[in-house]
Amino acid sequence: MNDDTPSCDLTDRAVFATWTQDSVRYRDLDPNGHVNNGAINEFFEDGRVHFRRETMAGLGDAVLTGFAVGSFSARYRAALHHPATVEIGTVVIRIGNASFTLGQGVFDGDRCIATAEVVSVFFDPESGRSRPLTDEVRRALESALRR
Amino acid sequence: MNDDTPSCDLTDRAVFATWTQDSVRYRDLDPNGHVNNGAINEFFEDGRVHFRRETMAGLGDAVLTGFAVGSFSARYRAALHHPATVEIGTVVIRIGNASFTLGQGVFDGDRCIATAEVVSVFFDPESGRSRPLTDEVRRALESALRR
Amino acid sequence: MNDDTPSCDLTDRAVFATWTQDSVRYRDLDPNGHVNNGAINEFFEDGRVHFRRETMAGLGDAVLTGFAVGSFSARYRAALHHPATVEIGTVVIRIGNASFTLGQGVFDGDRCIATAEVVSVFFDPESGRSRPLTDEVRRALESALRR
Amino acid sequence: MNDDTPSCDLTDRAVFATWTQDSVRYRDLDPNGHVNNGAINEFFEDGRVHFRRETMAGLGDAVLTGFAVGSFSARYRAALHHPATVEIGTVVIRIGNASFTLGQGVFDGDRCIATAEVVSVFFDPESGRSRPLTDEVRRALESALRR
Repeated sequence: MNDDTPSCDLTDRAVFATWTQDSVRYRDLDPNGHVNNGAINEFFEDGRVHFRRETMAGLGDAVLTGFAVGSFSARYRAALHHPATVEIGTVVIRIGNASFTLGQGVFDGDRCIATAEVVSVFFDPESGRSRPLTDEVRRALESALRR
Repeated sequence: MNDDTPSCDLTDRAVFATWTQDSVRYRDLDPNGHVNNGAINEFFEDGRVHFRRETMAGLGDAVLTGFAVGSFSARYRAALHHPATVEIGTVVIRIGNASFTLGQGVFDGDRCIATAEVVSVFFDPESGRSRPLTDEVRRALESALRR
Repeated sequence: MNDDTPSCDLTDRAVFATWTQDSVRYRDLDPNGHVNNGAINEFFEDGRVHFRRETMAGLGDAVLTGFAVGSFSARYRAALHHPATVEIGTVVIRIGNASFTLGQGVFDGDRCIATAEVVSVFFDPESGRSRPLTDEVRRALESALRR
Repeated sequence: MNDDTPSCDLTDRAVFATWTQDSVRYRDLDPNGHVNNGAINEFFEDGRVHFRRETMAGLGDAVLTGFAVGSFSARYRAALHHPATVEIGTVVIRIGNASFTLGQGVFDGDRCIATAEVVSVFFDPESGRSRPLTDEVRRALESALRR
């Protein structure tokens, strides 16, 4: 997916810049008794919303709502059960011209349940068109760039 | 719940004024392999959204978005499986001063899966306060009142 | 709903016997920016699952999985936003022959977001038919009966 | 993702082997009034469940339940609104030793809303370990391989 990006081990909790939590719900379970991947995708989404609030506070609503997920790529690594509290780590792994890529991991304690790479596209809410990242967005992203 | 209302058999398809459909999703299943009640509640919500669009077209967005569910009372009557297409029937069973009550049924063919009575409260989106039903809303509701 | 039951103020945190927590997800929001009632219904479900685990531990899987929701009646009292952590309180308000009624409340701090009364029916998982509560189930329920 | 695989244009309805449908629900909408990507992921899941039922009927429950999603990669291409009925197309794009890759598209009429590539891993439900595709599974997959 990101052939120009040095690899980043998203199963390693140490790589992430921001963290949030979610509780597993009974409704997340599917017929085999595991948490459905759809719920895990919701955890990833919460990690991204939290990331934007934490790194872009003060940039205004136009910035906070001016991103859309262009592509989402997840790897499901272990089964998750109910009840549980998961932790979601998020880090910037690439900053492009009009988009950036986040790396994410969902953890149940030390167990990595799933990892994801997500490309967010920056757009103008009025026109709906993609636009270059502003300098202040770029600086905010750099503050959460993995080392 | 509605002691002043003559009873209405919501398991009888003949009582409903408007109908819509929904498809059951794999994600709706819970660990016992049945559709979770939460999904059935989503079908009821779709029936209400469809009801408003069908009976209140032309009354404007302020009316369409000016209702909130005050209370929801459901009876779950039969198990539902995947895949299936359900039909949701909706009818007005009581018109109050600032609210109205809908009767609803979710059906899988002839089988009644669940029934519900739902009180919707009319409010002013700007102030967030309850307000009396307008004459045009009242007329729209009367057109879908059960006989 | 429960005309033979002395009233119980479910907006009062002091009445509940067991408590659990859930985190609000971004996915729970609907177009008006509030948490959708469907998500609140999922919080109530988690409260019931937790209640069974806490009060019926040791009674075996046949008991834990031998209940189905017969009816669900909720009142939505205040808007809920994201992010938030909600607390769900649950208490037994009536013990019948083959069923029992739980009272529930969802709270965001001191604010009561919604209350519910839920009738759970006890059944035999093999035959699928309703059956009388056993003595051990009855004792477990009595331990969580509101005073 | 699949560098050894000749490319396949998943925005082209002509490439798919099986089709199913889903209805969009009001609950799928998020605060910006669009269908949330999580709902689109549920449509993809329904496409895969339908695919297995259609291509592997007669292979037995052990086969039907013996797959897990190892990785999921989606590209979100256009906004989807409510109400709508979407069609989900699915096709085999690669058959490996112990896994296979499906290509999928979600369409609202002629508009392609999203595409996905999904690697399903074949495993033994008893041990939980990955195992080679059986000959009958391989034949079933070949019948749905894109041309």
